[in-house]
Amino acid sequence: MKNVIHAKCVKCGKTYEASPNLTNCGCGGILDVVYDYDYIKKKLTREKLAARPNTMWRYRELLPVEETTPDTPLRVGWSPLYEADRLAGQLGVKKLWIKDDGQNPTASLKDRASAMAVAKAREAGAKIIACSSTGNAASSLAGNAAAAGLRTFIFVPERAPKGKVAQLMTFGANVISVQGNYEETFELSKKAIEKWGWYNRNAAINPYLSEGKKTVSLEIAEQLGWKMPDYLAISVGDGCTIAGVWKGLKDLYAIGWIDSLPRLISAQAEGCHPINRAIAENKPWQPMEENTLADSIAVGVPRNADKALMAIRESNGIVVNVTDEEIMAAQKLLGTTCGVFGEPAGVTGTAGLKKLCGQGVIGKDDTVVSVVTGNGLKDVANAIKFCGEPMKLPNDLDALVEEIDRRGLKTE
Amino acid sequence: MKNVIHAKCVKCGKTYEASPNLTNCGCGGILDVVYDYDYIKKKLTREKLAARPNTMWRYRELLPVEETTPDTPLRVGWSPLYEADRLAGQLGVKKLWIKDDGQNPTASLKDRASAMAVAKAREAGAKIIACSSTGNAASSLAGNAAAAGLRTFIFVPERAPKGKVAQLMTFGANVISVQGNYEETFELSKKAIEKWGWYNRNAAINPYLSEGKKTVSLEIAEQLGWKMPDYLAISVGDGCTIAGVWKGLKDLYAIGWIDSLPRLISAQAEGCHPINRAIAENKPWQPMEENTLADSIAVGVPRNADKALMAIRESNGIVVNVTDEEIMAAQKLLGTTCGVFGEPAGVTGTAGLKKLCGQGVIGKDDTVVSVVTGNGLKDVANAIKFCGEPMKLPNDLDALVEEIDRRGLKTE
Repeated sequence: MKNVIHAKCVKCGKTYEASPNLTNCGCGGILDVVYDYDYIKKKLTREKLAARPNTMWRYRELLPVEETTPDTPLRVGWSPLYEADRLAGQLGVKKLWIKDDGQNPTASLKDRASAMAVAKAREAGAKIIACSSTGNAASSLAGNAAAAGLRTFIFVPERAPKGKVAQLMTFGANVISVQGNYEETFELSKKAIEKWGWYNRNAAINPYLSEGKKTVSLEIAEQLGWKMPDYLAISVGDGCTIAGVWKGLKDLYAIGWIDSLPRLISAQAEGCHPINRAIAENKPWQPMEENTLADSIAVGVPRNADKALMAIRESNGIVVNVTDEEIMAAQKLLGTTCGVFGEPAGVTGTAGLKKLCGQGVIGKDDTVVSVVTGNGLKDVANAIKFCGEPMKLPNDLDALVEEIDRRGLKTE
Repeated sequence: MKNVIHAKCVKCGKTYEASPNLTNCGCGGILDVVYDYDYIKKKLTREKLAARPNTMWRYRELLPVEETTPDTPLRVGWSPLYEADRLAGQLGVKKLWIKDDGQNPTASLKDRASAMAVAKAREAGAKIIACSSTGNAASSLAGNAAAAGLRTFIFVPERAPKGKVAQLMTFGANVISVQGNYEETFELSKKAIEKWGWYNRNAAINPYLSEGKKTVSLEIAEQLGWKMPDYLAISVGDGCTIAGVWKGLKDLYAIGWIDSLPRLISAQAEGCHPINRAIAENKPWQPMEENTLADSIAVGVPRNADKALMAIRESNGIVVNVTDEEIMAAQKLLGTTCGVFGEPAGVTGTAGLKKLCGQGVIGKDDTVVSVVTGNGLKDVANAIKFCGEPMKLPNDLDALVEEIDRRGLKTE
């Protein structure tokens, strides 16, 4: 790759040639892809960009792929960025945009990482990709690989919800339900990957995945005409996404396309916030229990904590923890004011923003982008619990008039 | 509207001025919007199109809206059209494209109709839109209206699945669960709409909705460089969608942008196919029972049968009925070969295509577009029933090796 210098361990600084099959550093640290920005500046212009298809691959000079690596088939990326003026008014901020990344092929931001895994697997000549996950990583891998004609082996713990397994099976994944907890599931996947040499899409290990995720912030910048907001709010689980978001922003700053960097707002669940706790207490992170209904960010042992902590600190970021009730209130708030239906983990960034507005940390002079990372259709069960009851009436107009009156609803 | 001449009853031919609040003709017939193609030809060029945002509103000269009517806020339309070479090979056709319309904001093609309803409601000065539906029409209306700051009253029969009601509540709709069947629900909505003068988004009545839906075929044509396939396969319920698809194609033919028209393939469920029966027997349509799991097309009394029958006949179309098993097999086929997850009603067009290929009606010289009308996440329950079981194993590599061997799975 002419645009990549090498991969560098974020822990010990050791560098590696950026081969497609890269995993962790010998010291256990996660690798970071280091680019040749001078080369990229020469190759990529805004005019070139404007003529390209609306997918994440429009940014290929900023991505760790060969020039000849084909785009992946599903339309990943270029999700809508909505101006949310009514919600901005309610929260009391100057300007707010909602980036709805639930509008991806398998309905989450993880499609960006999985599309990257598919591209790199092709470079490696692999025909099979494997991962262990019960959630969006798994479904996005299964879908993106199926579209590219690659096979998948996906390891899930036996507690994985049937609906998620059904999605994997429909995409034709080979699904292994492991009798045991997540650690045991991960372990079996590791042994199998070693035995058969499958391409590894475990975000803890593959340094290219967060490079795929960074395309969300490249898009935000382009959609805003390369003018950055003051803040960027996002939910945080294992840390890979917020690290990717920050990487994309720094890339654009490095090539001179943006001249300021937003402060990151790292939103986690009150019931599981090891990364935010490490920032708040300025200590190394420690494992936490996983007590939140926002399943995609219920990560007590975050596997990308190092990169995430670095991103939050470098951006002079803000951490905020929200309760499950605050998360579900944010889901409804986004639905009613923006027509955006996000999954609980997907709306946690907005929940955090709302909390910070209430506390006066963010206010009327501030501009903010809030990223919704997954679609609400992924978890209808929790929406049912929190959304309230409809009016229940017979086919009788008088009864309807009375009920509308009782509730004080406006009819015009 | 300078581009619209009038609306004309498809039954008796009476014409009406195209005001935003149009409903059915006095004779009970459905109205059809008649355009001034000479005017449109002068106003719309392919070069103009190329520079526009990727939403359904890029075709506004071909849509029944005022020049000053604003675009609706959600990003509706411009769903991906995938080249499905592997699936084409399996079915034995020359070329196949899958239009994945489940990639719309509320995850179905109905967003196109609901965005149109929002645009027309704004023209009418209405602040409230109402409809009766349990399905995609309801959720798309709730979402698109919320984004535009309009309120909704949505009437659902009491049997409506909780998940769908939750989606409506999350979008802030006023939901009325009517103790009775669908007919009683529709009746109460009608009385309420009359009483309060709400804008009416019942597809049986509002002639603008299928004009919104037609944007799916405008897009297909543009995405194919204005070269039409031999066939276009789509699922059919109340008839509004296939009528819209045909209208869009005829529009493009009328302005000279395409020089041939595909034959329509109308796919219905074996357990509910009143429109296809009418074509097959060349008789007027008769109500049928609703015995299929493809709920969005389980329409025994199709409300747009007239327009649908006309479309199928005019296109020299083909009708095909498929069993629930064939529908669910098509869901898996699309998942495994294309990475597209469609709801049962959404994949019925592809199921029909597959059946016709098996019968030799469609074959190796034919090119086909198959439209997937809704996202599989809308109905995970049926996917669970049909997708098969994962491998269930302990954390034991030897057990995995044995199981993979037993199943004859390829590991490289």
